[in-house]
Amino acid sequence: MSQRQVVQVSTSHACYAACVLGTEVFLDMHRSTPKGASSFEVHATSAVTVHVIHNPVTKPMNTSRWPLDPDIEVVVTIGVTSRTVNDNKVKISYYGWEGNELTVAWLYLTCVDISLDVDLSRNGRVRSKGKDKAKWTWGPDGQGAVLLVNCDKDSPSSVGMDSSHTEIRTSADLQDMSVMILRTQGPSAIFAEYQLVLHVPESDADKVRVFHAIHNDSRLQYKLVLGPNKLSYVLDHISEGDSTFYVEGLSFPDADFSGLVSFSISLLEVTHQYSPGTPIFTDTVVFRVAPWIMTPNTQQPVEVFVCSIEKGINSNDVFLEGLRVLLRKVNCKLTICSEVENRSDRWIQDELEFGYVEAPHKTFPVVFDSPRNRGLRDFAFKKILGPDFGYVTREPPKKEVSSLDSFGNLDVSPPVTVRGKEYPFGRILIGSTLPWASGRRMSKAVRDFLYAQKVQAPVEVYSEWLSVGHVDEFLTFVPAYDRKGFRLLLASPNACYKLFKEKQKQGYGNATQFIGLKNMERMTIDELLADETLKNDNRHAQRCIDWNRDLLKQELGLSEEDIIDIPQLFVLRESRADALFPDMVNMLVLGRHLGIPKPFGPVIRGQCCLEEKVCSLLEPLGLTCTFINDYFSYHVLSGDVHCGTNVRRQPFSFKWWHMVP
Amino acid sequence: MSQRQVVQVSTSHACYAACVLGTEVFLDMHRSTPKGASSFEVHATSAVTVHVIHNPVTKPMNTSRWPLDPDIEVVVTIGVTSRTVNDNKVKISYYGWEGNELTVAWLYLTCVDISLDVDLSRNGRVRSKGKDKAKWTWGPDGQGAVLLVNCDKDSPSSVGMDSSHTEIRTSADLQDMSVMILRTQGPSAIFAEYQLVLHVPESDADKVRVFHAIHNDSRLQYKLVLGPNKLSYVLDHISEGDSTFYVEGLSFPDADFSGLVSFSISLLEVTHQYSPGTPIFTDTVVFRVAPWIMTPNTQQPVEVFVCSIEKGINSNDVFLEGLRVLLRKVNCKLTICSEVENRSDRWIQDELEFGYVEAPHKTFPVVFDSPRNRGLRDFAFKKILGPDFGYVTREPPKKEVSSLDSFGNLDVSPPVTVRGKEYPFGRILIGSTLPWASGRRMSKAVRDFLYAQKVQAPVEVYSEWLSVGHVDEFLTFVPAYDRKGFRLLLASPNACYKLFKEKQKQGYGNATQFIGLKNMERMTIDELLADETLKNDNRHAQRCIDWNRDLLKQELGLSEEDIIDIPQLFVLRESRADALFPDMVNMLVLGRHLGIPKPFGPVIRGQCCLEEKVCSLLEPLGLTCTFINDYFSYHVLSGDVHCGTNVRRQPFSFKWWHMVP
Repeated sequence: MSQRQVVQVSTSHACYAACVLGTEVFLDMHRSTPKGASSFEVHATSAVTVHVIHNPVTKPMNTSRWPLDPDIEVVVTIGVTSRTVNDNKVKISYYGWEGNELTVAWLYLTCVDISLDVDLSRNGRVRSKGKDKAKWTWGPDGQGAVLLVNCDKDSPSSVGMDSSHTEIRTSADLQDMSVMILRTQGPSAIFAEYQLVLHVPESDADKVRVFHAIHNDSRLQYKLVLGPNKLSYVLDHISEGDSTFYVEGLSFPDADFSGLVSFSISLLEVTHQYSPGTPIFTDTVVFRVAPWIMTPNTQQPVEVFVCSIEKGINSNDVFLEGLRVLLRKVNCKLTICSEVENRSDRWIQDELEFGYVEAPHKTFPVVFDSPRNRGLRDFAFKKILGPDFGYVTREPPKKEVSSLDSFGNLDVSPPVTVRGKEYPFGRILIGSTLPWASGRRMSKAVRDFLYAQKVQAPVEVYSEWLSVGHVDEFLTFVPAYDRKGFRLLLASPNACYKLFKEKQKQGYGNATQFIGLKNMERMTIDELLADETLKNDNRHAQRCIDWNRDLLKQELGLSEEDIIDIPQLFVLRESRADALFPDMVNMLVLGRHLGIPKPFGPVIRGQCCLEEKVCSLLEPLGLTCTFINDYFSYHVLSGDVHCGTNVRRQPFSFKWWHMVP
Repeated sequence: MSQRQVVQVSTSHACYAACVLGTEVFLDMHRSTPKGASSFEVHATSAVTVHVIHNPVTKPMNTSRWPLDPDIEVVVTIGVTSRTVNDNKVKISYYGWEGNELTVAWLYLTCVDISLDVDLSRNGRVRSKGKDKAKWTWGPDGQGAVLLVNCDKDSPSSVGMDSSHTEIRTSADLQDMSVMILRTQGPSAIFAEYQLVLHVPESDADKVRVFHAIHNDSRLQYKLVLGPNKLSYVLDHISEGDSTFYVEGLSFPDADFSGLVSFSISLLEVTHQYSPGTPIFTDTVVFRVAPWIMTPNTQQPVEVFVCSIEKGINSNDVFLEGLRVLLRKVNCKLTICSEVENRSDRWIQDELEFGYVEAPHKTFPVVFDSPRNRGLRDFAFKKILGPDFGYVTREPPKKEVSSLDSFGNLDVSPPVTVRGKEYPFGRILIGSTLPWASGRRMSKAVRDFLYAQKVQAPVEVYSEWLSVGHVDEFLTFVPAYDRKGFRLLLASPNACYKLFKEKQKQGYGNATQFIGLKNMERMTIDELLADETLKNDNRHAQRCIDWNRDLLKQELGLSEEDIIDIPQLFVLRESRADALFPDMVNMLVLGRHLGIPKPFGPVIRGQCCLEEKVCSLLEPLGLTCTFINDYFSYHVLSGDVHCGTNVRRQPFSFKWWHMVP
């Protein structure tokens, strides 16, 4: 609403008003103009600047006298904070048609200084004042403060996230909040006559909480002053100096929330018991709630998660042993989720996605819990949420949740530039159905959340041709020294047929796959190549992957040289595809070390020709390949290494507010 | 997703493809390049244009031969629709390092023409083709088709709005829909090999329905082909010519719906039973759902609505008689809602608001039904909804509905220009609480709807200081010949005190109000002026109105000369204000004729001094004042003439798509 301060003047009595340093005060003289007056003069004491606003044809009658045109306006500003009440004076003299002074109106002004300040320039410090504080802008030259969703749990004994509590329990909790400071200057007597109100728009109130740090018996206390159903806070006992507030976010950006939240301080003139209080000054600051950011395979790993499954033919002992071999090469923690915790659910990739939030004053990891909700349902909330480890989830209606809501179907590319547009955090990849098809999709609630974070603009690719339907079944990204710093790996039936035909030509047609695996049907290269149904199935799979290849080239700005085809065969079951042998792109990427599902391909001269081929494609990029046997523990259950692991990675060093989404 | 068509070429067999007139076809030659090839040439038949896309340092080796750089790309376009299948030929020759031709790849192309067309230029006609059809732009030079929410009920026998039915029942129903035409050209044999799919994005599907006009046994039938849960439609029996579709809107713009809906036609290559179909061409059109538009007092009235209340001391016989006197001066229909229909609820202003929707092909009025839901709850749905009379409502949770959701609290200004920004449909005014207060507000669902219509950007004013809390208790707009074409009338305690003081000075201090009314406590001017409590109450009321005055001046670009102060007194009851005598700004505006609540003010020389004052203020503007006695029928029940009436007005002649919101 209105920001402009209008002060009535009167010829029958002196008027008094407070005003704020440097702001415009409009004098409403017309409603008090005496009968017969035709012109006026305004004079004021030295700290007051008088501006007469007139239309271009109106001219002053002499140096200081102006005609009383209906559209003429008088504005005053004061450049110095008052030392005493009423130390600025304005005098308006009215003159009749003959130039005779008819009467005089006196106005006494007290000038105060009020400023609501935040970390406008994003350097972790609250600067005094600043321009355009009500604007939040992106980019290296942008401005505007950042708020974190207080979604961690700093007090181990409490239940749920800190944002679900209305009080501050630990000093660590304060560290997650943004500081906002109210600064006031001026004669203290004047503040007794006015009200200072801190307020938040109705639309923003349920997204934030504000605590006021108050000294109480020499102890600092934090009083909840704004938040859900608390739109305004009247400050008591205003005196010169600073009041400190701590602000926490309660909600991530989403379809119905841009992420921007504003707070205002208003100085109100209150003259009547029931009067609404007229604001004579309002100062507004705006925060943006930090987005949840995903980390691509090119970010260094910090911690690898895997489930332990001890019993039965699908026990993952062998797999864990293989994983440990890989981890010995990488400086990275291994966390094993016990069978009690995972309740026999081994698909830890699918239940959660690690990301982080960042503000100039604080950064912490945040786990996004999928609405998939199988055995691992409570793992993220119970075991990962903790001090400086946040949690977020989205729960669509049960009937809307499909296999495509599992986070094996959620990935993010390394940083890319697409036709001049930079994505310094990469782009989120979501597996979906074709745009014109009514098939399975990730639920709207999850997609809305991902789109609303803005800094990793999602691309929806086509994964619904697969039985499980996850993007990690046909693509992954690996780091590389050259070009864009990475390669896109795509599963490729064509590359597999090409390899097998070469081997056949070289006389290895009777080389056999699945060597080393008990009780598996073994096929030779000749048999595989002769299978017409398999050929048809893979022609289809290749077309589906090609469709994505072209899309990814466009949406990630890739050329053919940025893509590597990894030999892989698929087989159709009820019109949807499964990997025929362990799906090599479904790998674990830890820096330059890759944990690849052991494909058990045709063995030629003691070596698996698929492993040999993949090594020859990836090792020149500086990568090492460790093949991990996941056959009975994962592959036969429709997943592979990637599906069975999860990785928390280093945040980007680049700050998200420096990008322009 | 991807729009670009990529065609594989092969040196082992000829390749065949369809393409669309004027679109680019990328030839993927790299994956089929023979070993040892270092350069290539492309030649084609006359209708084909070949473009070689290369980086600036790559030069052709002679006029037509190019090096096989990894980044070089070949694109062809065809400018003539094919007469027969495969009538365009492209030949790619590969050369070795010594310049010897190694091998050749042949590609046969069939060119078809496909276009999805709508009323792009908003003149009621579907033009063939057009540029940037997927863009919708505002303004006189804007483009993009318009869709109406089919919210009327063309068949009197049906229940609810036409949009709630999945079939078309009357030809009148078709008139409310927008036409969309699919045009295809090319050898019919080629369409047998490809699929044409009409599709709508998932996010838009629940906002629209599309019907396909199909000749069936020489009878036209309308088949529902797209809509909620119907994202795509495969066209059968494609032949050259036009397919006609009718499109209806199901939802008005709202917080979660911009109003834009797009449709696409895709030509799909389908080569395998389970193949997703690769789109080789997509044409997209976009509609905007027409907003619901309110009509200010400056629009000519068409129909006045009022309730009949027959029994008891609050019967409105006298009021209806007064209203008929006014309506004799105005060429305007009077519709009386009987007591059976109104169930003793006389506040017809509060239950509904008339507006309209407009498309180039059709305009009709639409009633917005308030969630207030008292006796008149079903009136709009049962009695107003009908052929070419639409209906819309928003139902927030019951507990969120307050008196501020009544539509006496919803008004719209005449057209205004504010600091250069034009509002050719005026701005909606919503009564609210102060921005920092937690008081009553219009519910979010209703406000969201109003904001989302975009063309009458709402202003929230402060009305919550009143007991009933409606904007029509302190402001209205009347037409005027001069200035901006209207005046804002504001209730003014100051003007009333000024008038009474003048009359007292002139010796009429003992003039008495409420003359002519039985059993009312009569007060003289002297008594009114001596009442200190009343003075305090009105000082508060004046401050609240002044707050709005300043806001309205800024948000509607008004100056003091655009505002007229109408004498009025208020009285506080439990800290909120009621009009002390019939509230004169709560008037009925019918062109230049005003129906004003008879104020029963102090009578001086046989004339009510309030009526005399108001006439002297308004008659110079060319307005006539008819004072209507609403004292016992409305005023004592906390409302006046405006609250008890409602007006359907002429739509604006200006088209909403010509503005830039």
